[in-house]
Amino acid sequence: MSSLASPALSLLPSSPPQIAQSIADWLSETAIERDKAGGTPKIQRDMLRESGLLGLSIEREFGGLGASWSVTLETVRILARADSSIAHVYGFHHLMLATAGLFGERAQWAPLFDATIREKWFWGNTLNPLDTRTVSTPREGWREFNGQKTFCSGALDSDMLIASARQDGLDRLVIAAIPTTRTGITLHEDWDNIGQRQTDSGGVTFERVRVDESEIFARPGPLGSIRATLRPLIAQATLTQIYLGIAEGAFDAMRDYVRTDARHWPLSSADRQAKDPYALERGGEFWLALESARALTERASTAFDRAWEAGDRLTSEERGDTAIAIATAKLASAKAGLDITTRLFDVLGARSTRGELGLDRFWRNLRTHTLHDPLDYKTRELGDWAINRELPRPTFYS
Amino acid sequence: MSSLASPALSLLPSSPPQIAQSIADWLSETAIERDKAGGTPKIQRDMLRESGLLGLSIEREFGGLGASWSVTLETVRILARADSSIAHVYGFHHLMLATAGLFGERAQWAPLFDATIREKWFWGNTLNPLDTRTVSTPREGWREFNGQKTFCSGALDSDMLIASARQDGLDRLVIAAIPTTRTGITLHEDWDNIGQRQTDSGGVTFERVRVDESEIFARPGPLGSIRATLRPLIAQATLTQIYLGIAEGAFDAMRDYVRTDARHWPLSSADRQAKDPYALERGGEFWLALESARALTERASTAFDRAWEAGDRLTSEERGDTAIAIATAKLASAKAGLDITTRLFDVLGARSTRGELGLDRFWRNLRTHTLHDPLDYKTRELGDWAINRELPRPTFYS
Amino acid sequence: MSSLASPALSLLPSSPPQIAQSIADWLSETAIERDKAGGTPKIQRDMLRESGLLGLSIEREFGGLGASWSVTLETVRILARADSSIAHVYGFHHLMLATAGLFGERAQWAPLFDATIREKWFWGNTLNPLDTRTVSTPREGWREFNGQKTFCSGALDSDMLIASARQDGLDRLVIAAIPTTRTGITLHEDWDNIGQRQTDSGGVTFERVRVDESEIFARPGPLGSIRATLRPLIAQATLTQIYLGIAEGAFDAMRDYVRTDARHWPLSSADRQAKDPYALERGGEFWLALESARALTERASTAFDRAWEAGDRLTSEERGDTAIAIATAKLASAKAGLDITTRLFDVLGARSTRGELGLDRFWRNLRTHTLHDPLDYKTRELGDWAINRELPRPTFYS
Amino acid sequence: MSSLASPALSLLPSSPPQIAQSIADWLSETAIERDKAGGTPKIQRDMLRESGLLGLSIEREFGGLGASWSVTLETVRILARADSSIAHVYGFHHLMLATAGLFGERAQWAPLFDATIREKWFWGNTLNPLDTRTVSTPREGWREFNGQKTFCSGALDSDMLIASARQDGLDRLVIAAIPTTRTGITLHEDWDNIGQRQTDSGGVTFERVRVDESEIFARPGPLGSIRATLRPLIAQATLTQIYLGIAEGAFDAMRDYVRTDARHWPLSSADRQAKDPYALERGGEFWLALESARALTERASTAFDRAWEAGDRLTSEERGDTAIAIATAKLASAKAGLDITTRLFDVLGARSTRGELGLDRFWRNLRTHTLHDPLDYKTRELGDWAINRELPRPTFYS
Repeated sequence: MSSLASPALSLLPSSPPQIAQSIADWLSETAIERDKAGGTPKIQRDMLRESGLLGLSIEREFGGLGASWSVTLETVRILARADSSIAHVYGFHHLMLATAGLFGERAQWAPLFDATIREKWFWGNTLNPLDTRTVSTPREGWREFNGQKTFCSGALDSDMLIASARQDGLDRLVIAAIPTTRTGITLHEDWDNIGQRQTDSGGVTFERVRVDESEIFARPGPLGSIRATLRPLIAQATLTQIYLGIAEGAFDAMRDYVRTDARHWPLSSADRQAKDPYALERGGEFWLALESARALTERASTAFDRAWEAGDRLTSEERGDTAIAIATAKLASAKAGLDITTRLFDVLGARSTRGELGLDRFWRNLRTHTLHDPLDYKTRELGDWAINRELPRPTFYS
Repeated sequence: MSSLASPALSLLPSSPPQIAQSIADWLSETAIERDKAGGTPKIQRDMLRESGLLGLSIEREFGGLGASWSVTLETVRILARADSSIAHVYGFHHLMLATAGLFGERAQWAPLFDATIREKWFWGNTLNPLDTRTVSTPREGWREFNGQKTFCSGALDSDMLIASARQDGLDRLVIAAIPTTRTGITLHEDWDNIGQRQTDSGGVTFERVRVDESEIFARPGPLGSIRATLRPLIAQATLTQIYLGIAEGAFDAMRDYVRTDARHWPLSSADRQAKDPYALERGGEFWLALESARALTERASTAFDRAWEAGDRLTSEERGDTAIAIATAKLASAKAGLDITTRLFDVLGARSTRGELGLDRFWRNLRTHTLHDPLDYKTRELGDWAINRELPRPTFYS
Repeated sequence: MSSLASPALSLLPSSPPQIAQSIADWLSETAIERDKAGGTPKIQRDMLRESGLLGLSIEREFGGLGASWSVTLETVRILARADSSIAHVYGFHHLMLATAGLFGERAQWAPLFDATIREKWFWGNTLNPLDTRTVSTPREGWREFNGQKTFCSGALDSDMLIASARQDGLDRLVIAAIPTTRTGITLHEDWDNIGQRQTDSGGVTFERVRVDESEIFARPGPLGSIRATLRPLIAQATLTQIYLGIAEGAFDAMRDYVRTDARHWPLSSADRQAKDPYALERGGEFWLALESARALTERASTAFDRAWEAGDRLTSEERGDTAIAIATAKLASAKAGLDITTRLFDVLGARSTRGELGLDRFWRNLRTHTLHDPLDYKTRELGDWAINRELPRPTFYS
Repeated sequence: MSSLASPALSLLPSSPPQIAQSIADWLSETAIERDKAGGTPKIQRDMLRESGLLGLSIEREFGGLGASWSVTLETVRILARADSSIAHVYGFHHLMLATAGLFGERAQWAPLFDATIREKWFWGNTLNPLDTRTVSTPREGWREFNGQKTFCSGALDSDMLIASARQDGLDRLVIAAIPTTRTGITLHEDWDNIGQRQTDSGGVTFERVRVDESEIFARPGPLGSIRATLRPLIAQATLTQIYLGIAEGAFDAMRDYVRTDARHWPLSSADRQAKDPYALERGGEFWLALESARALTERASTAFDRAWEAGDRLTSEERGDTAIAIATAKLASAKAGLDITTRLFDVLGARSTRGELGLDRFWRNLRTHTLHDPLDYKTRELGDWAINRELPRPTFYS
């Protein structure tokens, strides 16, 4: 990592959002070209390693910054405005840490957190409950993982993985933390999708991978306690922030362009496009959608902080209320973003489709990521709460 | 007012929202029939007089409850869920008081506030800047008001009026507080509109009405200082709460009916309508819209409290930010409500159109009131802020 | 019926659409007051009896006008623009005739058609397959109908009824044509719903009503042949025309008002509301929706004429294609109308909510009638065709 | 052009739509990779040259196929379903021919049409009225063109150009037909936009280009007669067909994938995604939008054929009605397409974002092309007709 190409971290201000903003500014300089290139953003990932932000959600006793989740999630959004791929793998890194913390025992995650700080580990994801092809077979004192996984965001260039497998013959999930370099793990460089192009969300093959019992999170285990069911909520809250960040980034790009480069239509009653009556109405519609999503996302973050602090005293009802708050914010962010990223072009005109501006990346990134789990079923979840007062049953997606 | 027909106020809990809720429950028993009847809700207005809520926004030194605006606005919303006509005249009563407080001098409003508490005055509105037909002609030491005014909500059965006139020969507004019984004032019982049917928002004729100089608010005068420009923001915030209250009332009515009376379609995969996949999706969409409006409305109330507390130190920028927060909440509430009040019937089916249920009143009330000032121009106002960072110029509608 | 109050039919032009237009013009003079009054539009129904339009769909050999269904449906739409209640009972009259023609034998319907012309019969509806409370019990050579029916549009002031009952102990529908005055039939004047207020769509009680076997349509019987399954398509096509007529009537009322009475907002760049940029955009959106619905409705009518002419040679595929064409037109009309009838007020402003204008009746009428069968399930029907090439299974609603 | 890679034209069926379909099938095999590559689709353009379709709109007397415009436009749509870039340059080729036919004299266009057939010319566009940088300076018996033009679709690899310039010192447009190889013309290979990537819609530089008076269309000249104002309508009708073709192509791709590859969500009540209740509702919504656009587009084509046949007898009113029909169809197609190309992914799920499927190209192509002229101003145009009965004033965009 060249000191010329990256922000001088020693000179960075100390608050995590400020650090994230500084990195975001730097990321945005190359975001368009890296979107075209795809692949692993190695320099950018190393910058995150150097920045200290990978320790943001880790408690101070292990050398982390001990930030609340609302602050950690805020940094995800700040990065997503500039580069939603980086924000994605960064947010999932914290999700992986939380997976250890929520599914495992202190004796397991304490050393992992410690090493994450000390070794500047970047965690990657190979946990995908919908892809059941990887199987865990019990051996003596260990298990053997065999099979495939898709959508393994951030596994490439990671130091540690959260891996999942279906227990042989049972419909039960086994989840473990293992080094990325463990023998038998092959990370495929096969992610070439229409958006989120630098997330490396491709496939992984496990071939006779040895996983020690001590690496498996069994107490409380996956979704094994009310507190443990906060894990999918961190995932959903992270997606929310990425969606909202993309929408905000798109809006900012629209505003910059309309004020400087957009031409007004000859029939407009205004003398410049930024004052055209329809441009103003679109701008107002976008702002309304963004402000709705922002207000709901802040509410959701506050609710999550409260749930997190409740720890083992967390009740099912409190967990459910938090889930609803996050689901609401997620839908608002997704819808706001899908609308803005399409219609911003109506404000800007034909010249805004130039490839060098890369303004389509907002739609491609958001469209890709908002398919993580179906928006329709998330809406149904809200409806079941609104109509029947039934809280969502905890799963890996709710 | 019969003690049988109304909540026993002496037994009411003491918090203003609780009092408002108690009154709302009582109002909802007759809301459907009174909507059909139209006219002046005299018993209900007297109940408000007895309840103490008419003094809610008046400082404690004058015997009022000294509530913050966010609490006063909350009571408007609570009433609006049950009866948006009553909420309207109640909210406008507080707006009239604020008009005196913001446009006039302490020597003017202090005795008015005092008498409002002592005499249980209900204030009505004859201020309508868009209707310029009423003219103020200077006489010696007083002025003569002549002409018409429309949309004078709550003037009938009021004790005091805020009246406005155009100064003869000038494009300047004269605003005064005068007793409703003042010679020459005729209140027409001509409000028979499709919604908000018990707001008496009809016409008033001023015929050689004498207005003393001491009754005219000249210092700072209408919108005469930054603080004075908070007046239209109270108006807009009050509309916001009414819109949201209607939307919430409609949703609650939908939920009650779908869980008890609605039939599911024979082709539904569910065994009851409250679990039909499309009913659930609509419910989720409604909830998302309501939660967005609620979150923005709470933000706006908090912002307004802060602006109010700033008093004469309030800056144009702070005032503008508050205006934007309120405009955003207003649009969200209006849009949420217009959608919910139409589509709730799709969830409930044909039998929900029975007249006795009166479920159309939500749409009629909201549709009527959301035309107070055009939604399109409010959206444009947001857009000018979002794109050009131009804050709305203070007028009686922004 | 006073000759002063009604169009002089002898002077009417001879084409059915022209006759319908002439009646529509006359209906529109009283539509607002009759909407408020509800009840049976006796004078208006008698006018239809005199007009000859009740024989429009009856073949010339029986003295009818022998019009194609597309012409008959066009007259429904023309009436619906002015008065959707009258259009409703008028359209259902023709649907009842078609029910006899499609479900019964020539020996049954030929004399009924003959008498309809000769006696100027108006047919009413007591066929409601979803309300299964009326039961048919076999007697010797006849059946006894006992029970209730709801949504019996146009039964009051009718001469003949199409009645349905569930065959005792079986899940089979018995459908017959019987005189409205038959002993044991009680028509309740209990329709007081939010819209379609002069359709008398209330309840009917059958108490030991004797129905002769010769009055029962058994060959081919209800939906008893491919041709017989055209009956629900006539119902759906009739609804389509009513929805579209309401939308067109609403648009016309909007246009008249905006060009003459609407005020433009002070901030508008135009000097009158009919030229305001947002009014023009709304107008364009409404026009687009109307034109879409019109084009699809014309297609659907043409398709239906073709299916009707095929008679017993009609295939399931042709029937299904026709059903899809009608379903598409129906959804387009419903959606266009629900949008226009709500948003037209945004173009017109607050003064357009005056009760005397009655502009809310468009929304109330359409909202009521578009619940006949759920729009969501009609959309699903289209989707099953679009995605899976599965044509709708013939039922009384598809 | 390899005979292996292309359809054997000698074996093609003879109807133009069948030929177009055959080519479309061939184009779709490489559409995804060519979208990624961008640049000039030389092989595909040559195939069009060989196919005879470039003479489709040329009268039979010159050796063309003499098709009606509705047939020519239909072939544009057929190609657009598979490859909207090729459809674009193909449609614009016919637009260029029509430009000669409508703006020039027979003595000018007759030999051009003749040579187009004989030499298999492909025409390209350098007419862009909004870009006024190219100037025409009068010389003795000729003119000199100097300056830039943007958005010159299909100019690369073209044989002839329609070029435009602003007459020096006047606000008048000079339009001419000139060979692409004319000295002084430089076509820039600088089109690298987010969509329509093989249209070569980049820039052109004219440097002292000699244009003979005989090459300039002066009688009737640009928009110089009512008939001549059909030219922008052909442009708008061509865009309409491309938009609709893209929407249809996207829908077809969605249907193919959902029936074969899409996974249903675990909570779905259906056993496969093609039967999921929300997938079916989306499918129905898409179908409704497509059918609306199709019905309006067919109407518009029929209207245009009629206007074309009227020739010099065409009235302003007839021209205006045709313009409105086309504008309506264009808006319906654009809106249908923008919605479908975004939301199809909700039906298909995350795996459908794989780059090899290239399903984002529909959105990118449509989003790019729907900015040709603003949808908002086209809607306003409709509104001015719907409300004020004002027909659009003929310009190059209406």
